[in-house]
Amino acid sequence: MRFTSEQRLDDDVLEREFTLGEVPGILWTPGSASAPAPLILLGHPGGLRKMYPRLAARARHSVAEGYAAATIELPGCGDRPRSAAADAARADLRRALAAGEPVDEIVDRLVLPLVDQAVPEWRAALDALLALPGIGGPVGFAGGVIAVGIRLAVVEPRIAAAVLFAGSFVPRSMFEEARQVTIPLLVLLQWDDEGNDRQLALDVFDAFGSQEKTLHANMGGHTGVPQFEGDAGNRFFDRHLK
Amino acid sequence: MRFTSEQRLDDDVLEREFTLGEVPGILWTPGSASAPAPLILLGHPGGLRKMYPRLAARARHSVAEGYAAATIELPGCGDRPRSAAADAARADLRRALAAGEPVDEIVDRLVLPLVDQAVPEWRAALDALLALPGIGGPVGFAGGVIAVGIRLAVVEPRIAAAVLFAGSFVPRSMFEEARQVTIPLLVLLQWDDEGNDRQLALDVFDAFGSQEKTLHANMGGHTGVPQFEGDAGNRFFDRHLK
Repeated sequence: MRFTSEQRLDDDVLEREFTLGEVPGILWTPGSASAPAPLILLGHPGGLRKMYPRLAARARHSVAEGYAAATIELPGCGDRPRSAAADAARADLRRALAAGEPVDEIVDRLVLPLVDQAVPEWRAALDALLALPGIGGPVGFAGGVIAVGIRLAVVEPRIAAAVLFAGSFVPRSMFEEARQVTIPLLVLLQWDDEGNDRQLALDVFDAFGSQEKTLHANMGGHTGVPQFEGDAGNRFFDRHLK
Repeated sequence: MRFTSEQRLDDDVLEREFTLGEVPGILWTPGSASAPAPLILLGHPGGLRKMYPRLAARARHSVAEGYAAATIELPGCGDRPRSAAADAARADLRRALAAGEPVDEIVDRLVLPLVDQAVPEWRAALDALLALPGIGGPVGFAGGVIAVGIRLAVVEPRIAAAVLFAGSFVPRSMFEEARQVTIPLLVLLQWDDEGNDRQLALDVFDAFGSQEKTLHANMGGHTGVPQFEGDAGNRFFDRHLK
């Protein structure tokens, strides 16, 4: 892990960009030295530059509550080398959605390789981040792509709780993985998400094997998650990570 | 309104039983004089004595956060005169549910007269409670019977926000009323509620006309609402009543 830039934000949050091999990422920690903070991994749909304002807002909210927060770029997104297969699948998905055609096969082609490549990268980032001073376990995952969150929750024992955004497609074959998830979950669903299937999201929530799982559904579209859900997420992590 | 008993609970909450005409009720207020507190009406499925432990716990939680809380007995429940028609409908409902038969007509017979009688009683209680010193508006409603909450939210302009328990049947004819609800709502759904229809609850949530409506679904049966939802309800009311 190599730090490539560092700035102190005005609420005394230290923001550091890093690269881990080929993968760029960002780490937010308290500006002043403190006891090791539990770490929250911030998931997102890909494109760190485009997502930066929302990611930084979520990170600063978490740091204010005593957490460290970090994220990495997804494969084939942002400044990372594109994948011709993923780009073709994305175009096919847009076409199929516009035409009202079934998307299951396209979702498999788009999401399964993404999950297969991204999850080992998140785990490697976790190794590097937990080796830094000031960052401790347990670890939470917050965000999307929900399929990445599901796989991480199944294979990565250091993740103790997750806030999952039900705002992207889940391959049917991953329902079996969802049943294997046992950590506490808070699932956020935008009721009128234009790019998502509400019933699919409810089915995924139903499938999770966790004894404590809570669904928060709010009005509005994909990017309309109300601000108070940030507080709700922090309180959920407070119960499970502190 | 006539107070019939008064006791000071150990967390400095003043609990007073009252009657308003034929209708018994309970009022919980801060033990020490303070600025007028916003009032939360605590809905329930009927039977104040049986429900007392849970109602008192919810009330004390609310008073600790700066609210007054009050509830009244439902028609035909607890110590109030039984209704032969309602008792027959309840028995029919149990039979139909056990046999897996349709219940729409029975739900109409059971719930619609209850709503018609209960809602004017809650409004009369509101008149009397808001005339007391130390109790001010705005007013919240929290609990069930959800059909009572829906009607109250439509007809009673003093109710500014509601936490509704999606744990009882809603007559199909009340979906039109649900569309007329415009106040902020937090709807609690027990995902595995043995006595309720999950899809019906999701349909009711979808029908509400409110711009701000949030669904919190948790695991477990009818009485298994997690304790942290009490905190979530108070924070919801803090946003809208304070």
